Amino acid sequence: MTDFYTKLEKYADLAVKVGVNIQKGQTLVINGTLDAAEFVRLVVKKAYEVGALNVIVNWNDDTVSRLKYDLAPDEVFLEYPQWRAKEMEELAENNGAFMSIVSSSPDLFKGVNPERISNFQKAAGKALKKYRQAIQSDKSSWTVVAAASPNWAAKIFPDAPKEEQVPMLWEAIFKATRADLENPVEAWVNHDKSLYEKVHYLNGKHYKKLHYRAPGTDLTIELPETHLWVGAGSKNAQGHDFMANMPTEEVFTVPLKTGVNGTVSSTKPLSYGGNIIDNFSITFENGRIVSYQAEQGEEILKRLVETDEGSHYLGEVALVPHQSPISQSNILFYNTLFDENASNHLAIGSAYAFCIEGGKQMTPEQLEEKGLNESLTHVDFMIGSAEMDIDGITADGKVEAVFRSGNWAF
Amino acid sequence: MTDFYTKLEKYADLAVKVGVNIQKGQTLVINGTLDAAEFVRLVVKKAYEVGALNVIVNWNDDTVSRLKYDLAPDEVFLEYPQWRAKEMEELAENNGAFMSIVSSSPDLFKGVNPERISNFQKAAGKALKKYRQAIQSDKSSWTVVAAASPNWAAKIFPDAPKEEQVPMLWEAIFKATRADLENPVEAWVNHDKSLYEKVHYLNGKHYKKLHYRAPGTDLTIELPETHLWVGAGSKNAQGHDFMANMPTEEVFTVPLKTGVNGTVSSTKPLSYGGNIIDNFSITFENGRIVSYQAEQGEEILKRLVETDEGSHYLGEVALVPHQSPISQSNILFYNTLFDENASNHLAIGSAYAFCIEGGKQMTPEQLEEKGLNESLTHVDFMIGSAEMDIDGITADGKVEAVFRSGNWAF
Repeated sequence: MTDFYTKLEKYADLAVKVGVNIQKGQTLVINGTLDAAEFVRLVVKKAYEVGALNVIVNWNDDTVSRLKYDLAPDEVFLEYPQWRAKEMEELAENNGAFMSIVSSSPDLFKGVNPERISNFQKAAGKALKKYRQAIQSDKSSWTVVAAASPNWAAKIFPDAPKEEQVPMLWEAIFKATRADLENPVEAWVNHDKSLYEKVHYLNGKHYKKLHYRAPGTDLTIELPETHLWVGAGSKNAQGHDFMANMPTEEVFTVPLKTGVNGTVSSTKPLSYGGNIIDNFSITFENGRIVSYQAEQGEEILKRLVETDEGSHYLGEVALVPHQSPISQSNILFYNTLFDENASNHLAIGSAYAFCIEGGKQMTPEQLEEKGLNESLTHVDFMIGSAEMDIDGITADGKVEAVFRSGNWAF
Repeated sequence: MTDFYTKLEKYADLAVKVGVNIQKGQTLVINGTLDAAEFVRLVVKKAYEVGALNVIVNWNDDTVSRLKYDLAPDEVFLEYPQWRAKEMEELAENNGAFMSIVSSSPDLFKGVNPERISNFQKAAGKALKKYRQAIQSDKSSWTVVAAASPNWAAKIFPDAPKEEQVPMLWEAIFKATRADLENPVEAWVNHDKSLYEKVHYLNGKHYKKLHYRAPGTDLTIELPETHLWVGAGSKNAQGHDFMANMPTEEVFTVPLKTGVNGTVSSTKPLSYGGNIIDNFSITFENGRIVSYQAEQGEEILKRLVETDEGSHYLGEVALVPHQSPISQSNILFYNTLFDENASNHLAIGSAYAFCIEGGKQMTPEQLEEKGLNESLTHVDFMIGSAEMDIDGITADGKVEAVFRSGNWAF
């Protein structure tokens, strides 16, 4: 127990100091669930200790959320509270930092009418547009971390004794986030460096296209002329470092909106809005999704693709070696924060402005002109495996190995 | 356990059907703490079942609240979030209903710098002024109910075994709110009637003054010309009944702001902003508090009285027989919701507009003209005992017994 608490404290330290990297006088906004109360409280304490002005916790309860989807009338899902959107916008404008602590079960909304979910996602997307733009252009510091909950742990370790499930998930989280090491903060400095080396190499190469090959996958993705590979640490508008995801093992950039052609197959289940989409493939022509199918959750996938026009295009291209620590743990987390870091992945939806030169200062119109996609949504899905090869194709047509058998080839 | 759950369900039913009396299509806003999660979830479920459009839970966590008072810098207590005030205002304007589920320990903020507490109370009072006006004029339905929490239960039953404290407090709450009866909703209809008989009698008498006598108390309170006695059920702007407090055993009206003279002594501890004020007396001249003293918490009392100009005057006069069920339980709850219903009490601060004829439609200026006090605060304190006599004095000087030895004299 003491050992557990030591790791929990180190993890809270990481979230505060490396994740959002709270500065003296900053306000921290935490989204957390009641299941994560112990960890949330620890984060609040650490944040005040390093000088936070205020820590606002927007608590959510999974039971209350589910009751709403089961019992409320349809029309309530068409609206998102304006004051909550206002809160997020104002805090983003006033140098607030944002931490999401995810812990819900991937099955939370299983069986809920998908129209209710997609309606609410759309309403939230519209209401939170300004806030999300601030986040996606790295104006504010933000981070997504995880906390174990009984329902999520039961999903991952269904065969373990009930009382061991949550401790097992915590251990997996500590391992994936390096919180189990002697000096996790230092470990993250080194990890950041090694990711940066990949970023530096790929930006030097400046490939025009990537060509993906794997069972069920033959896909070519063109990259925008001024694309930038990015990985691990980010910098906010004040120049302070932050780590948007913990764990993170990926380096990523944006695709040219109209430059995606071919078919790609998923290699892990995708948990979307509390539902699972599994064994699916998507076909693109000139960037646009022209067909898709799923063995499980096809209706949910349909809702996702049809959120808006932009959700018919890709917004992110991410590379993760198959031998990443999370991949090697062989744990399927049913949670994108972890599973995307075990696998090469793409994202349906909006593209990150900071992934092209000067993008942070561009208007939405300028970003569109540069070939970046815009959408109310942004959802990662996993496509990597030990059988995946990726070639980089340069502007003059030279073909170079980027990935072989699921791992870096350089 | 099953028996407990049955009572908890009946209690949730009461809160939804009698407390806020939710109507189809209404939004319910719940303020609750993490300690009360089980009860909050039950209320959410019941509210949707009777047709609520949306149930918004604004969760608070006592540990997070205390961490803020202990660790945040001073300046954060000078501000109340505007978006939260906006939320409450907008919901009040749009026929929202409001439920506060209180469960915090009376010692939650023990030892906190009282200036931080009074600064925050002031900031909240200013920001929430419009919302509180809507509530205090009964525009919206609102209710305050309680839920047991470990810390509160430990305060009330310090000598009981730890595992029995919370169940003991729940039993006391069920008893005080009639949730332990076969048909609690019907019991409340009857209770409402019997309180209404007292209200009817007192409004018929139309006393000009009340004269209180008890050990340490000799106080005369003049009542406004058009005062109304009120008790139990209220009606919102749409004409729907609601019960603002559960339990409630009081009938009450407003004092004439400048018509209070003499000294009054407390008979129960007052829990204010997480601190205890005990064994105190207050002296009034022409309505204004001219001196006060307290054996415990005098500094807290000072902060309360000095909140603003209006907190130097009274805003409520309430009569509760000493033989009320809560008084007979002999449990000191250290919580005004219960303790005020065991005892005659007064309130420092703002007066209820609905306690004078036509008051709900009056502007703040008109209410002041009628002799009603206005303040950012409204805090009840208990003065009743088995030794209290109260006379009613009519306009033509006739003296009649209202209370003798702590109970109704008519």
